[in-house]
Amino acid sequence: MGRTSGAREVILSVAQSLIELRGYSALGVAGICKAAGVPKGSFYHFFESKEALALTVLDEHWADQRGEWARVLGSDADPLQRLRQLFGETEASQRAGQQSCGTVSGCLFGNLTLELSNQTEAIRLRLQEIFDAQVDMVESVVAEARERDEVIVADTRDAARSVVAQLEGQVLLAKLYNNTSQLGVLWANCLALLGARMPQEAAAEV
Amino acid sequence: MGRTSGAREVILSVAQSLIELRGYSALGVAGICKAAGVPKGSFYHFFESKEALALTVLDEHWADQRGEWARVLGSDADPLQRLRQLFGETEASQRAGQQSCGTVSGCLFGNLTLELSNQTEAIRLRLQEIFDAQVDMVESVVAEARERDEVIVADTRDAARSVVAQLEGQVLLAKLYNNTSQLGVLWANCLALLGARMPQEAAAEV
Repeated sequence: MGRTSGAREVILSVAQSLIELRGYSALGVAGICKAAGVPKGSFYHFFESKEALALTVLDEHWADQRGEWARVLGSDADPLQRLRQLFGETEASQRAGQQSCGTVSGCLFGNLTLELSNQTEAIRLRLQEIFDAQVDMVESVVAEARERDEVIVADTRDAARSVVAQLEGQVLLAKLYNNTSQLGVLWANCLALLGARMPQEAAAEV
Repeated sequence: MGRTSGAREVILSVAQSLIELRGYSALGVAGICKAAGVPKGSFYHFFESKEALALTVLDEHWADQRGEWARVLGSDADPLQRLRQLFGETEASQRAGQQSCGTVSGCLFGNLTLELSNQTEAIRLRLQEIFDAQVDMVESVVAEARERDEVIVADTRDAARSVVAQLEGQVLLAKLYNNTSQLGVLWANCLALLGARMPQEAAAEV
């Protein structure tokens, strides 16, 4: 992006921080402009509304996270080891967030789901697309593991959704207790949920 | 409670509905009073602030839910069957909420955790106490099942927390997709997370 989009990037960055700290409802265009140091006219030049801004924040955050997930889940490692790396990176990223701002900020998508999914249809639909895509990515790795006879899974879609649900639930508790150490159980829980044949051996490979 | 507390009960009931529909930040004392049909003076007679109101909503909702959980998890049934009943009742309650108001409202505690835990320390601490109590109740059933040699669990606390995390994560997805059918996997997932010795047989007892 060129120099001319500087104000847009600052607005997006400030909006994401404010949404992570205080949620969407507490956000106002005036407050965003003040924190970003831009006039309101500049805000409305780039974004039609607060909702349009939130959708862009979601899209950009998902573009980054999707890239990370694709790198990890599409690597040459064994399928279960790729899932393990995904959880390890999730834990590291939550811990880094905590170290930089003092609190575990959790998952932006989960936060907005519980705050907003009954209010703003456009945001609900975007969040559905994002979680669908996450489940797709996990499901494809689970299917590979099943082909290799490493997991016992009747329905790869249900299994992938359960892995994502466990991830969201544990990140919720990490945010509540401002403590990331509980995220260390994600890998063992994933193996359990997938009926992995040899969890002891897999764990011993650590 | 006597007749004199009528206004208090109406305010609490309206506040809980509004929090479930739109979250805490979108809530204003004026809006609550309007929806409840009470003057502001009456609100401040019962509640010091919006935060005090939210804490009371949490306490009353947890008193109800704790009663339900105690009834189910303290029954004479086998421990794993008690957990199964807990998930069945959770699914039924989310479905009833959806039928009455059109949308899955999710878990009030999870919703406020993700909206508020980084903003309002008093609410964060109360939510921690509530989730601690939930984990306590599940842990005591898991410990009973372990004594009966029905599960393979190294740490009953971690296991109970994982069961609660899975519940919160699945309810989050049910809210997002406005679809409770996915909650049907909770029982099988709980058995998997607890390393239940005979999931097939246990499932066949349905």
